[in-house]
Amino acid sequence: MAIITLTTDFGEKDHFAGAVKGAIYSEISDIRIVDISHSVSPFNISEAAYIISNAYSSFPKGTIHIIGIDAELNPENKHIAVRLDDHYFICANNGIMSMLCAEIVPEKIVEINIHDKIETKFPVLDIFVKVACHIARGGTLEVIGKVINTIKPIKNLAPFVNDEKNQIIGSVIYIDNYGNVVTNIKRKFFESVQKTRPYEIFARNHRFDIIYDKYSDFVNFEIDESKRHDEGKGLVVFNSSGFLEIAVYKSNCQTVGGASTLMGLKKMDTVTINFNKIN
Amino acid sequence: MAIITLTTDFGEKDHFAGAVKGAIYSEISDIRIVDISHSVSPFNISEAAYIISNAYSSFPKGTIHIIGIDAELNPENKHIAVRLDDHYFICANNGIMSMLCAEIVPEKIVEINIHDKIETKFPVLDIFVKVACHIARGGTLEVIGKVINTIKPIKNLAPFVNDEKNQIIGSVIYIDNYGNVVTNIKRKFFESVQKTRPYEIFARNHRFDIIYDKYSDFVNFEIDESKRHDEGKGLVVFNSSGFLEIAVYKSNCQTVGGASTLMGLKKMDTVTINFNKIN
Amino acid sequence: MAIITLTTDFGEKDHFAGAVKGAIYSEISDIRIVDISHSVSPFNISEAAYIISNAYSSFPKGTIHIIGIDAELNPENKHIAVRLDDHYFICANNGIMSMLCAEIVPEKIVEINIHDKIETKFPVLDIFVKVACHIARGGTLEVIGKVINTIKPIKNLAPFVNDEKNQIIGSVIYIDNYGNVVTNIKRKFFESVQKTRPYEIFARNHRFDIIYDKYSDFVNFEIDESKRHDEGKGLVVFNSSGFLEIAVYKSNCQTVGGASTLMGLKKMDTVTINFNKIN
Repeated sequence: MAIITLTTDFGEKDHFAGAVKGAIYSEISDIRIVDISHSVSPFNISEAAYIISNAYSSFPKGTIHIIGIDAELNPENKHIAVRLDDHYFICANNGIMSMLCAEIVPEKIVEINIHDKIETKFPVLDIFVKVACHIARGGTLEVIGKVINTIKPIKNLAPFVNDEKNQIIGSVIYIDNYGNVVTNIKRKFFESVQKTRPYEIFARNHRFDIIYDKYSDFVNFEIDESKRHDEGKGLVVFNSSGFLEIAVYKSNCQTVGGASTLMGLKKMDTVTINFNKIN
Repeated sequence: MAIITLTTDFGEKDHFAGAVKGAIYSEISDIRIVDISHSVSPFNISEAAYIISNAYSSFPKGTIHIIGIDAELNPENKHIAVRLDDHYFICANNGIMSMLCAEIVPEKIVEINIHDKIETKFPVLDIFVKVACHIARGGTLEVIGKVINTIKPIKNLAPFVNDEKNQIIGSVIYIDNYGNVVTNIKRKFFESVQKTRPYEIFARNHRFDIIYDKYSDFVNFEIDESKRHDEGKGLVVFNSSGFLEIAVYKSNCQTVGGASTLMGLKKMDTVTINFNKIN
Repeated sequence: MAIITLTTDFGEKDHFAGAVKGAIYSEISDIRIVDISHSVSPFNISEAAYIISNAYSSFPKGTIHIIGIDAELNPENKHIAVRLDDHYFICANNGIMSMLCAEIVPEKIVEINIHDKIETKFPVLDIFVKVACHIARGGTLEVIGKVINTIKPIKNLAPFVNDEKNQIIGSVIYIDNYGNVVTNIKRKFFESVQKTRPYEIFARNHRFDIIYDKYSDFVNFEIDESKRHDEGKGLVVFNSSGFLEIAVYKSNCQTVGGASTLMGLKKMDTVTINFNKIN
């Protein structure tokens, strides 16, 4: 059975996501629909890019991913379907695919051109569902679009290295459900610059010099539990998606706060890593 | 495979929606359950009516829609099952169905009367699931209820026209995930009053004289992108469900605000349309 | 078809829940995944315990429940799989199962020991999914863990009775979507202490002497609707899960408020019941 996933900014309340699911089942009754997220911040391309990048590869090859963010067709916002890593992605050509395409070369990109047959105020429902069901039935991309070679990039997505190769300048790209602050610095990139040098990480007035492997590596389990005061303390990890993340141990945004609120870090803020000479 | 949809005010956190799904699968293992929304504002009949009205028709004919809002059985709140437009709706007789029934004549309405066999504190789980599964197995409405002819209305749902036929007085019925302000004025109704006259739309101290076909028709794409300042500006469209909507271009309630917050518009507020003489 | 449910603190926005679903479908294509909740407060063990306790029994026997709360493996937080009431539960040994195990003796508990083969930063995805799919394919618990006899308790979960047996001292364990305040006092326990005595319930400065059977039993339907003022009034019920609950009739946290906000009651607050002599 084919799988279609949904990643949108429709929110949890409105009828939009329900209507899209109904339209898919109306086209193909024997299909599986999986919600990835409907709570992307409205029109937030980079959040959507982060979420779909980290979710898609858990799904079986051949899965079809509908991304419904800023999808209204206009002269500057065309619709595309992309085959990449044996998965299919259907979205607007607004930068969402640029994070994935920076890592993996797409196998095929088409600009969807079935619009002359369909007039719509709700393109995710009327266009993306049609394209997804076409692919689910085994149809080719060429039938619903014309092949193109490049997609629209998101600006400033990648971190920078200075000329002396002793500093990485990255930025915050995502705040997660725990208030953890995710940067655009991936482990592989970090290690390629670091070599074996010690490092210091700076975010606002906070400084870190250890990157943990997982959150609870921060805890010294040899100290008796009653004498430890780890909860609410800041730390740095490479998260499960491989991004450098500034976290707070056992954070909770609704109660004690998370890294974002406790350290005053928000999206687009700069995070800097300095590499020092080995003495 | 039969489809049962869920529209409730249970919220995203509590066990209620999960328990209802478990109960359905316990009755019928080979069935499809689709969440439409669990984030209707508690006890908000008109929100639920708006959501289910706009979602149901995307689903295949024969779909069964459970609406779990203000469903506790009491002398003034009976349970009904309605067949309308070849879909089935199971809910309390509290006005939820009146928006749909104002547009389409129901094929059959029954007041559910299986309660003497079931004592319950959770009627969506114990009654609505039973009725839904009965219908999914091909059972008729007469077996689970007695036929009635009318349902409870929601008051003040429809907009008014003045005697001179030069003014529509409508109201805000829904604020969506983007902060867009949806009125009860549908395009068909608007056009039947307008004829070919020019118009002015008033909401609080805001005035509009264009209704766009879609959001980005508001943008002049001939001006260079760097010189345009469209984001955050107010506009009026007929939305994808056909309702007159006061929107903000690329709004985001968590950041720049939406039409609701930026223009100070809330549910039940009046929106007036004046039609002018053609000079 | 086997059913796997998900109860986590992943939130509605991040990619975590989507990735877990993808991983399950990648292992077994013919399986049913049901979301119970992804909105448990981060790291909140007792909330998770309350939600899964109230949801699980609606599902068919044999259902597999993944509980992804505070699941990082460390010396003090092992992973367990529990068979109880013919259902399977996979979670960290952090107290989540203690509410269920206090009511029903588990049929089997194993401490999962497949970790030496898997290195992971995302144990719900890499360990819990593997274990759930193993069980779904008919595998036994002994293959993925070693049998243990006890699990970690949550402290202060049960209410107390004083020595004179004329007072129950309970506490608030959950605030639901309607702002209703759920205590740890179950009907059966209450009745075993009460016998036939009258009672007074105290929460902060609020006093109640009636426990209703359902919310609208609070309403006197013989009074004309226009003369009643029930909405927003406080009352006490045994809720649909059998817990004593302080509620507000037709509450809405976003508008008029709920019991929690209106009465200033929050999690861990004390609720006392005094039983009086029969005069």
